[in-house]
Amino acid sequence: MRAITISAPGGPEVLRAAESADPVPGRAEVLISVAAAGVNRADLHQREGNYPAPEGSPDWPGLEISGTVVALGTGVVGAQIGDQVCALLSGGGYADLAVAPEALLLPLPVGVGLIEAAALPEAICTVWSTIFMNADLRSGETLLVHGGSGGIGTMAIQLARAIGCRVAVTAGSDEKLDACRALGADILVNYRDQDFVQEVLDATDGRGADVVLDAIGGGYLDRNIRVLAPHGRIELIGNQSGKPGELSVGRLMAKWGSIHASTLRARALAEKAQIVASVLSNAWPLVASRQVKPIVDRRFSFENARLAHEAMEAGDRIGKLLLVP
Amino acid sequence: MRAITISAPGGPEVLRAAESADPVPGRAEVLISVAAAGVNRADLHQREGNYPAPEGSPDWPGLEISGTVVALGTGVVGAQIGDQVCALLSGGGYADLAVAPEALLLPLPVGVGLIEAAALPEAICTVWSTIFMNADLRSGETLLVHGGSGGIGTMAIQLARAIGCRVAVTAGSDEKLDACRALGADILVNYRDQDFVQEVLDATDGRGADVVLDAIGGGYLDRNIRVLAPHGRIELIGNQSGKPGELSVGRLMAKWGSIHASTLRARALAEKAQIVASVLSNAWPLVASRQVKPIVDRRFSFENARLAHEAMEAGDRIGKLLLVP
Repeated sequence: MRAITISAPGGPEVLRAAESADPVPGRAEVLISVAAAGVNRADLHQREGNYPAPEGSPDWPGLEISGTVVALGTGVVGAQIGDQVCALLSGGGYADLAVAPEALLLPLPVGVGLIEAAALPEAICTVWSTIFMNADLRSGETLLVHGGSGGIGTMAIQLARAIGCRVAVTAGSDEKLDACRALGADILVNYRDQDFVQEVLDATDGRGADVVLDAIGGGYLDRNIRVLAPHGRIELIGNQSGKPGELSVGRLMAKWGSIHASTLRARALAEKAQIVASVLSNAWPLVASRQVKPIVDRRFSFENARLAHEAMEAGDRIGKLLLVP
Repeated sequence: MRAITISAPGGPEVLRAAESADPVPGRAEVLISVAAAGVNRADLHQREGNYPAPEGSPDWPGLEISGTVVALGTGVVGAQIGDQVCALLSGGGYADLAVAPEALLLPLPVGVGLIEAAALPEAICTVWSTIFMNADLRSGETLLVHGGSGGIGTMAIQLARAIGCRVAVTAGSDEKLDACRALGADILVNYRDQDFVQEVLDATDGRGADVVLDAIGGGYLDRNIRVLAPHGRIELIGNQSGKPGELSVGRLMAKWGSIHASTLRARALAEKAQIVASVLSNAWPLVASRQVKPIVDRRFSFENARLAHEAMEAGDRIGKLLLVP
C-alpha cells in the first residue's frame, strides 16, 4: 500500500508517497480501506519533528479517516467487513490502509458522504470532550471560539448552536466571519482590527463568555481571562502563539474562573473510547439530523499532500482539508 | 456593642475597639452573640484597604464566628434563640454581635467547644468547596497543600486524610512540618531548603499530585504545573506571592491539567448556602467523629486584635488565630 511518509523532519516538501507493508489489525482492531484522511495541525508538528508518533502507531501522520472495514483482528465484537465508518487514530491515517481500535469507530452518519465523513472524528471528539464533557457548556450560555472558520471552529459553532448556545468567534477576514455567521455564530470579531474582549463584553451586556475554546494559547491567555464570565471556563487545545501565558491570579479568582488544557492524540485508548462513546450518544444524532455537518474546504490527492500542508499553514481555509488516496 | 473597627487603612495598629449600634437581623437572618471570631488573611487585606467589605456587610472585618443565637429576623425557619452555632459571614465578625443568614449557620458539632468552633467555618467551607466540590479529590489520590500548618492547611490535611487521600505539605519550619505529620500528612517539604516538585515526584514514583491547593499563587504556578499528575487539578485561593503566574500551555496540555481560582467571601449567598449545605452533609460528620478538629494556635482578646493581626503577618502559627470578645 501507499503511505504519505515524512522523509525527514522539515517543511511540506518532506512528505513523500512511499510503498509500505500493509498494516495488520491486532486484538480488538479493524483494518480500514481509507476513503479520506483529515489534515490536522498536529500533523504539521509531527512533520516538523516536534510531535513524534505515539508508540505503536505508524510513523506517518493522520489522526482521522473515513473508509470501509476490510479485515478484522481477533476479539472484534461489533464491526463487520464492509462497514462504512470513520475513525479516530493515534496516527497513520495518511495511507491506503489504516488500523483502528474498534472502540474508536463511528458509523457513517445517514446523509453524510464517505469522503466528507473524514472531516468529523478529530474535530467532533476534540470539541465534545472539551467544551461539553469537561467545561459542561449549557444551553443559554455563550461560547467564544478563536479561529471560528477552521476545522475545530466550524464544528464548535455548529455543536454549540445545536444545543442552544450563543456563539462568538474570532477570525482574520470578513469572508471567514461570513462563513461563521452562516453556521450560526452571531458575535463576529475580526481580530485584525477589533478587540475580542471589548466586542464580546459589549455583545453580552458586560457578562462575557461562559466558555472559551482556544488553540492560540499563551498569547491570548490574559485576554481570555478578561473576557470570561463569572464561573467561566477556558479550554486550551493548542499553543499556536508559541508563548507562555501570563496568568493574573487575582483576576481569575474574582471570576471563579477555570483553565483546562488538553490534547486528544496522546490520551489513553480507554479515555478516547469514552469520548467516542459519548460523541456517539450525544453528538452523532446531531450529525444525522444535519444540525452538524462536516465542513470541507478542499480535497487533495495523495500526490498533493504537500499542497494540503501548505494550505494548512497558509490558514486561508474554511473548514477541513482532506487527503484522498 | 463593641466592634473592632478599621480607623484608617494601614497596619495592625489601625484596629480599634469602638462602640457601634447593635446590628438587626433582616429577613432569613439571625443575630448571634459572638463567642469567638476567626482571623483570616482576607481580614488583613481589608484592613490595608485592598479588599473592601461587600455591600450590605459591616465595615469591620470577620468572616466567621461562633456563638449563640439571640434574636431572629422574619422568615427564619429552623434556627431558634439559644442555638449554639458557628457561621460563615461576608464580614462583621469582629464584634460582640453579628448578623448571619440562616442558610450559612452550622450547628455546634458534638465534642467541639463553642469558642474553638469559630476556627471551622471559613477553612472547612474553603477546603470543601475547592478540593472536593470543584476538584473532586478522590480516595487514593494525592493532595499537595502549600502552607500546610495554617488554618486552611491544617483543615485540608485532616479532610483529605479522612477520605483516604495521601497528603503532601509545604511549610517553612520543621516544627510546622511535625504538626502537619501529626495531623496525617506524610510527604513533608520544608520549602526553605527543599524543592517541592522534586520531593513530591520522588515520593509518588514520578506521578505527582492529583490536586494542589495553593494560596501562594503566581510565584508557584509553574512549579505547581510541574508537580501535577496526569489530569491533575490546581486550586488557587490566594496570591500571596503578589505575582502573575507564568503558564506553560504545552506543559499543562501534556498533563490534561486544570487550574481553578476562586474566592469564598465574594460569592453570592445562594452559592455559599449550597457550599454550607454540602459541608453539613459531607464534612460536618467528620468533625462530629473527631476525624477533623478545629486547630487553634492562640486566642486574643478584642483589646489585643492588633496582636492577632501581627501574629498572622508573622506567619509563625499552627492552625487558626481567634478573637474572643
